[in-house]
Amino acid sequence: MKNSIEKINQFRDERNWRQFHNAKDLALSVSLEAAELLEIFQWRSSEEAIAAEPEHLKEEIADVLIYTLMLADDLQMDVSEIIDEKLAKNAIKYPIVDTIDDQNS
Amino acid sequence: MKNSIEKINQFRDERNWRQFHNAKDLALSVSLEAAELLEIFQWRSSEEAIAAEPEHLKEEIADVLIYTLMLADDLQMDVSEIIDEKLAKNAIKYPIVDTIDDQNS
Amino acid sequence: MKNSIEKINQFRDERNWRQFHNAKDLALSVSLEAAELLEIFQWRSSEEAIAAEPEHLKEEIADVLIYTLMLADDLQMDVSEIIDEKLAKNAIKYPIVDTIDDQNS
Amino acid sequence: MKNSIEKINQFRDERNWRQFHNAKDLALSVSLEAAELLEIFQWRSSEEAIAAEPEHLKEEIADVLIYTLMLADDLQMDVSEIIDEKLAKNAIKYPIVDTIDDQNS
Repeated sequence: MKNSIEKINQFRDERNWRQFHNAKDLALSVSLEAAELLEIFQWRSSEEAIAAEPEHLKEEIADVLIYTLMLADDLQMDVSEIIDEKLAKNAIKYPIVDTIDDQNS
Repeated sequence: MKNSIEKINQFRDERNWRQFHNAKDLALSVSLEAAELLEIFQWRSSEEAIAAEPEHLKEEIADVLIYTLMLADDLQMDVSEIIDEKLAKNAIKYPIVDTIDDQNS
Repeated sequence: MKNSIEKINQFRDERNWRQFHNAKDLALSVSLEAAELLEIFQWRSSEEAIAAEPEHLKEEIADVLIYTLMLADDLQMDVSEIIDEKLAKNAIKYPIVDTIDDQNS
Repeated sequence: MKNSIEKINQFRDERNWRQFHNAKDLALSVSLEAAELLEIFQWRSSEEAIAAEPEHLKEEIADVLIYTLMLADDLQMDVSEIIDEKLAKNAIKYPIVDTIDDQNS
């Protein structure tokens, strides 16, 4: 992921865009792109959406990642580390059992 | 990012959760986590939010990434590649100029 | 709707909350509440969600309306009017035809 | 609000659109429109957004209301009632005090 973050930062520095990139507006942007991703599934099943707009799906997933990586980097986070830490917290909340867990229990 | 995706997949397979993970609900989940991230900034400035809840910020950014990486992997996407492709499209839409670009122009 | 807006305004003025209610944070709040509404449907079908959490559905729909009505009122909008105007615009975009319209065409 | 709901229902029945309107996709649509509303404030202050796009603000607020009223009506909710009930619950959670309340306390 370090390589992607470097390319993303190069892109925004070439255009002098960091001046706009405060944390609140970056978090807001993550939400906006998440909605553009979700829109592909509006009125459709998963299969219909994937069949109808495979390229658009790639673009919106990329957009969500780009804004999230910018925000994480601006907050000096190591994304591999924070994912590991969150998985560790999730493992305590959802211990492995023998039967199938309902994700909402 | 491949290492993070492997750990995320191991986590959900240990718990047999892929049965729930259709693309539409994963995209919906990305939106939900994006909102939990944005909530940290509700009624606050960027600085106030960062000072008030630094750990919570890490957790919510991790959650957005975890769901997005699960969706990307289920759709057989290479996240480094789709980020590169989107940056390439963005470079055409926002060419580098000598003056400061307004991101919304 | 005027009656609801009066009660909502009385509620926030009794608590001196308008000081926090700038338009950007109100719009952000509408998004947060929309996500809390959508969460009821995570991993579930419409029928499962309605059966599982009928009271929670009422609360979240009310929350979305409360924040949206506050924002509309602060911007001096008449909500019946703006709904009429948007339906008129939609009627031009989606004229009535003899066959069934695909909402995404 | 009854009058608005009648016009909204007439609009969708003239076009035979209720066939698409399951609760989950309506809730998803509320989220999408909330994001389109929030987008007007991206990279901007409240004042800048209001000055830049006053008509667009009316349209997106109307869209959020239209989808929310459709969902509420399909679930047989009386919107004035559910707003009253939520304000009553909020009044218990946030009692009126003599000093200024922090909304997040």
